[in-house]
Order: sequence, then structure tokens, then C-alpha cells
Amino acid sequence: MSEPGAPNIRIVLIEPQHPGNIGAAARAMKNMGLEQLVLVRPRQFPHPDATSRASGADDLLERARTVASVAEATAGCGYIAATTARERDQYFRVLDVRDAAVQLIAQARLAPAAVLFGAERTGLTNEDLEASHALVRIPASAAYPSLNLAMAVQLVAYELYRGQGLAAPPAPANAMPLATPQEMEQLYAHLAQVLEEIDFRDRTRSGTHLMSRIRRFLQRAELDQNEANIVRGILTAVQSRRRPAGAPR
Amino acid sequence: MSEPGAPNIRIVLIEPQHPGNIGAAARAMKNMGLEQLVLVRPRQFPHPDATSRASGADDLLERARTVASVAEATAGCGYIAATTARERDQYFRVLDVRDAAVQLIAQARLAPAAVLFGAERTGLTNEDLEASHALVRIPASAAYPSLNLAMAVQLVAYELYRGQGLAAPPAPANAMPLATPQEMEQLYAHLAQVLEEIDFRDRTRSGTHLMSRIRRFLQRAELDQNEANIVRGILTAVQSRRRPAGAPR
Repeated sequence: MSEPGAPNIRIVLIEPQHPGNIGAAARAMKNMGLEQLVLVRPRQFPHPDATSRASGADDLLERARTVASVAEATAGCGYIAATTARERDQYFRVLDVRDAAVQLIAQARLAPAAVLFGAERTGLTNEDLEASHALVRIPASAAYPSLNLAMAVQLVAYELYRGQGLAAPPAPANAMPLATPQEMEQLYAHLAQVLEEIDFRDRTRSGTHLMSRIRRFLQRAELDQNEANIVRGILTAVQSRRRPAGAPR
Repeated sequence: MSEPGAPNIRIVLIEPQHPGNIGAAARAMKNMGLEQLVLVRPRQFPHPDATSRASGADDLLERARTVASVAEATAGCGYIAATTARERDQYFRVLDVRDAAVQLIAQARLAPAAVLFGAERTGLTNEDLEASHALVRIPASAAYPSLNLAMAVQLVAYELYRGQGLAAPPAPANAMPLATPQEMEQLYAHLAQVLEEIDFRDRTRSGTHLMSRIRRFLQRAELDQNEANIVRGILTAVQSRRRPAGAPR
């Protein structure tokens, strides 16, 4: 199925509004040797505009998966990167697209990786960003930094194509796969429950944003499955300690 | 007029067939801080598809120059690069787009530079290539290397934007500007005339391609104005020697 050497990287378009952009993204991917296109709730697809703009990449378009959620799109993935126009961010790790490409290629040797692209006008939600390990920044003019969706896919795909020629840092021999998005969601749910059980209140008064803050720094940590299990174990231990012996679980 | 730091580089689209690509190219340029769009015999322009795809770059689209020939588009230019899918070529200098960007930025400090893009299906003619100092290669998958026109503009513009941040080789203090396209055409016309006068026949039997062969290696030489004048002087000297004293000029 896969062209030899095609990296195991999914291009995930979230709620794309213009079917032409879907087709153009497919062509851009095929031009750069990528194969896995995933569409989350596309407004219109299939559509003649998508087919027409895909040009010789109609096979890739036909094999595109359409799913209902980002969680479904990234199921089984390790490393997840989210495209954004942000230059820097206090809470998220931000990588230049060229560095992100090298990272994605290295991680894709361990487990499927994914790059998330938001809708044309609205971009990615905070929830999408918080499911990612890093934000990918594409350098652009401050006077008009808003790239067309398919153009952004083209630039990421181009750097991924070039990055394969580079001596990417080899994966450590015993590297554990990253915790999957589902495992991370379970971890956050567990953590939220424990915080409630221990009646933790955010003393910084950031209020409802507490879980977001925690998600952001834990995503930056890029937990592997062992490490996620360790955190889960700690949470379980906290819960056990609070239960008097013999209390119902 | 120019945004400070915008390189003096023209993006020249030759006979673009789809007005949407013109608009998308304008947006790609503005995203990457380029300002000078030149259209050679566009099939349809202005056009609503161009305006719609330009999005926030409609100002750049309005200022686009429409001209009748490549010579007009590149008038007054020094360095000229031509985009192509060729990996290598026996006669032309071929530069990777990243290296070409550095070269274009350095040359644009001396005189306006230009990047030529051919029509969607047909690409550039040999005549266009022969007016260029180098071919620009955009790396792409051998399985499907044919990039959309606006995507190619996006990638070149992106590398030009990134290249400005690099320490480009400074122009030598006393560097002469490159011979302009017009000066080079005059040189080739002069040369063709002299070859005829001296009844030169191509002994390699490449027939009609002789002038093409010569153009290609002289373009690779990147003649500055002094050097072009030297060649012109030699041609004139050849002509003078052949005229008996007192013969009508």
C-alpha cells in the first residue's frame, strides 16, 4: 500500500469549509509523498471542487478517511502537532515548521503521527491545541500572516519531504511509544476526578482554566506510555489513601 | 511604497490559465512579504476567481502589472530564475529552491530580480529558460512531481521569506549589476549577426539549436554589464576586421 519511505503521518483537516481546499491539500500531499488524509466533519465532501483541485491526486482523495471527531482522527497516534499562526506561547511548545518536520519524521517511526489543521477562518480550538504535543509555526509576514489552508498543508508537506532526506535523530533503541490521545484523555479525566475528590481549588484564581493549564504542560512533557501509567498510578494511590479501609470503592 | 525589507523581486506568471491561481499566488506572496506580481498575457484577468482567492491580498492584485511579453516583465532586471521540474540539466544551471532563494536575495540588492513561472500545463518555453540565469528546482515526489502553479509560488515565496533571515553573502563592494535581459538580447542578436557574417556553420550538426546552446552557457556565466560590453566589443572588432577599409558600415 504505502510507497516505500512514505512517513506514517496523518494530515488532519478539521471542519474544512471549502471543498476546493481539500482537493488542493490532497494534491500538495501527493506531490510531497504523503498519503494519509483525514477529514473531521468536512462541510462538503465529496464535492466536484475537491476532485477538480486534486488533479492527479484523486486516488489519495478517494482513500481519505472522514471521521466525526479529532479523537477518532488521531486514534492510535503518538506525536501530534497543531498548526497555528502563534509566534510563541506561554504554555504550549512552539516549533518552527522545519524543526517540527524533523521531529514528526522521527516520531513517526515509533507510532503514527498527526498534524492538525483548523478550519479556514477559525483555526483550531483550544481543545485541539490541548490534545497536541507542540504547535507548528509557519513563518509569515506580520502584515498578513493568514495562510490559505491548502497552502499551509503544502508548506508542512514540503518540509516533511525535505526532512526525510536529513539525518533525523534516530529513535532511542528502547523508546516507548508516546501515550495515545485516548490514554491521555483517560489520564486527564482521572486527574480531574482526583482534584475534585481532594477538593483542590486553584489558588491562582484562573478558575475554569485550571485543567487547560495542566493539559498544556503535560502535553509539553510528551509522556510515553510508561510515564502516563506512572501518573495514573499516582492518581490511583492518592485515591486509595483517602479511602478508609473497608470503604466501598 | 515598499514595506521595509521587502526584497526587490518580481514574481512573473507567464500565460496563467486559471485566474484562481493568480489570486492564490498574490495571497501567497503577501503572506511572505513579496509585493511585485507581473502577469504575462494572462488568459483571464481581472476575474472574480482571482479576487476571491486573493482574500486579504487584493491590494497586491490591484497593483499587479499585466504585460505582453517576458522581455517586458523582466525589463531592467538583473538576475532571473526560472522554475522547472527538471532535476538536472546538461546546459542550464539548476539550483535547489532554498539555494536559489539566497542567491535571489543577494542579487536583488544590486538590481531587480525575477522568478518566472510557466503556464499550468505547459510550463516555461525554451525561450523563457534561455533568458534565465538559473533554473529553480522544487523538490517533489517522483511519483507525482507536478505542483499547482500557486503552490509553486507559495514555496518559492516561503523560501525567499526565510532566506532574508539568513546571512546572505554580501554583494561585493564594487559589484557591477548583471547585464539586463535587454542587453543580453542585444548581445545575442549581435552575435547571431556576426556568426552569419563570418559564415559560421555548426560542425556539431545541432542545426537550429546552435544559438540555444550558446545562450544557455552564456546565461550560466551570469555576465555583468562590463562583461557583456566586452563581448559586444569583441563582436564589433570581428566585424571591423572583416570590412575592408573604406567599405560602407
